[in-house]
Amino acid sequence: MDELIEILNQWATRRVMVLTDTNVAGLYPQYFERLSSVFECQTMVVPAGEESKNTEQLIRIWNRMLDFEMDRSDTLILFGGGTVCDLGGFAAATFKRGIHTVSCPTTLLAMIDAAHGGKTGINFGHIKNCIGTVRQPDYMMPANLEFLKTLPAAELKSGFGEMIKYALIASPELFNQLCSIRVLTAETILPEWIERCVAYKRKVVALDPEDRNERHVLNFGHTFGHALESYYWSQGQPVTHGEAVAIGMVYESRLSMQHAGLSQVQFNRINKLICRFYDVPEWSEDLIKSLRPYLLQDKKNSSGELNFTLLCDIGNAMINNFIQIF
Amino acid sequence: MDELIEILNQWATRRVMVLTDTNVAGLYPQYFERLSSVFECQTMVVPAGEESKNTEQLIRIWNRMLDFEMDRSDTLILFGGGTVCDLGGFAAATFKRGIHTVSCPTTLLAMIDAAHGGKTGINFGHIKNCIGTVRQPDYMMPANLEFLKTLPAAELKSGFGEMIKYALIASPELFNQLCSIRVLTAETILPEWIERCVAYKRKVVALDPEDRNERHVLNFGHTFGHALESYYWSQGQPVTHGEAVAIGMVYESRLSMQHAGLSQVQFNRINKLICRFYDVPEWSEDLIKSLRPYLLQDKKNSSGELNFTLLCDIGNAMINNFIQIF
Repeated sequence: MDELIEILNQWATRRVMVLTDTNVAGLYPQYFERLSSVFECQTMVVPAGEESKNTEQLIRIWNRMLDFEMDRSDTLILFGGGTVCDLGGFAAATFKRGIHTVSCPTTLLAMIDAAHGGKTGINFGHIKNCIGTVRQPDYMMPANLEFLKTLPAAELKSGFGEMIKYALIASPELFNQLCSIRVLTAETILPEWIERCVAYKRKVVALDPEDRNERHVLNFGHTFGHALESYYWSQGQPVTHGEAVAIGMVYESRLSMQHAGLSQVQFNRINKLICRFYDVPEWSEDLIKSLRPYLLQDKKNSSGELNFTLLCDIGNAMINNFIQIF
Repeated sequence: MDELIEILNQWATRRVMVLTDTNVAGLYPQYFERLSSVFECQTMVVPAGEESKNTEQLIRIWNRMLDFEMDRSDTLILFGGGTVCDLGGFAAATFKRGIHTVSCPTTLLAMIDAAHGGKTGINFGHIKNCIGTVRQPDYMMPANLEFLKTLPAAELKSGFGEMIKYALIASPELFNQLCSIRVLTAETILPEWIERCVAYKRKVVALDPEDRNERHVLNFGHTFGHALESYYWSQGQPVTHGEAVAIGMVYESRLSMQHAGLSQVQFNRINKLICRFYDVPEWSEDLIKSLRPYLLQDKKNSSGELNFTLLCDIGNAMINNFIQIF
């Protein structure tokens, strides 16, 4: 907290707003209390869950920042998981054309993914992250693994999906280690795994912050993943982001066999690890047909063709495979 | 139009949406018609006027782009004045985290100011451009002076206010030429004046696109200008942007005498030119008190102090003067 206070002082921050959700606010109500002896502080709480990434909550946050008379030297702290990071990051990036943000991730998913890289946004018209910007947080607090102990099992599983992704696109060693897990708990997640994911993501984002090319590698599993997430959400049966990505990785590994030379043996290993932790629906024409409108809205598409990141091997991904699957 | 078609093809654009307002749509309904033989085209019309820069119109545009299934290779053409450029630019910058934009300015203000430089945004809670981003248009069509012939006198006057600003911060020669005008019509505006303003703005924006330092020079007259614009708007007596800036320039020239060494003689020349074309209310404690809440919301403020760009002389501005005026 000392380092954070020093940084806020360097920015000449006077007002700090801590944005959090109903889960985190209840569990860690005093976490940023020390700041209030140094800065004018307010806390704002949004309902926990992906449904909060909407225009109503966005406008609520803008209004609150306006009432608090925040200016560009002031700071919004994003204290929560992916929803708080995405929604709050977008509100801060657009308020007065951008105020400071600090991310303090409390979920595994946010620690290794959502809190880094600056993709912000809200869902719109049943499309995930349809509206947003790319803007890096100005400071990221180091991952505090204590938070994982209070994380619901479904959320841990969601973050674990993204962790499998990092293994598949970049690290056969990490993949082997993840295969050794039988039961998923906060204790089974090793701190060095988190560090490895964070280091890899930082490297890729630095190469291509605007997601025009190299960064597409991070989208393995996400073309189907986002479509599945949007589809299940529209059906009133939401799945978590990481679970949708896990299913997407099985489907895109199947495409990788057809289009990128992934071997059947490696596919089987991937399929086995993912099916140990996630319910993966059978690939069927009917399901693909239901996903079609969502697949066509994918942000990476260009001129109507679907853009996939595929695997040549475990730990070796290939970006920008434009494939007609319909 | 040939050049535009070539550029859209380079971007692999398939869908083009022309965003315009009720004034321009009525006057130039066929202007982009040729595009529809090459691309899928739609036109969307927003009500003319600053009031359209709100969340409702923003959401309307996002919905329309979604229904049209636009992706990142597609293009939004901003065909209008400041409102269309600001509102549409923000919608495009945030839809799927940014699709292509082409600006085609139809007002003097947009030609020399709003269509360049990438500041986009909407008004919010009575604060001008409270919500927005900085994102350069991907292509700007050359100024077509024919549009000025159908421009209402008040709009011409609004753009002329920004033109006076460029003269005051950067060009004593241009200032002398503007002083020679007695009656303002489309014909009295010389094409080389527009080119000079555009060239200067481009130079400054290239130095500091994010408006962190050098670009503040463009804000001469705008600290008071934005506050006046917000204040009159909240009172149900809106003034145009350029008119508010013109009044702001008189007030900030007054401050320049006190804080930046502007001579009384030069102040008198500025005051005389501006008062020839605009009604400038007497500087009074009461007026300043009414402006206070709006001045405090200015985006350039830092830690609660007001940030002014002031003049040392005509054609010579000084940025980042933090002054306590209350």
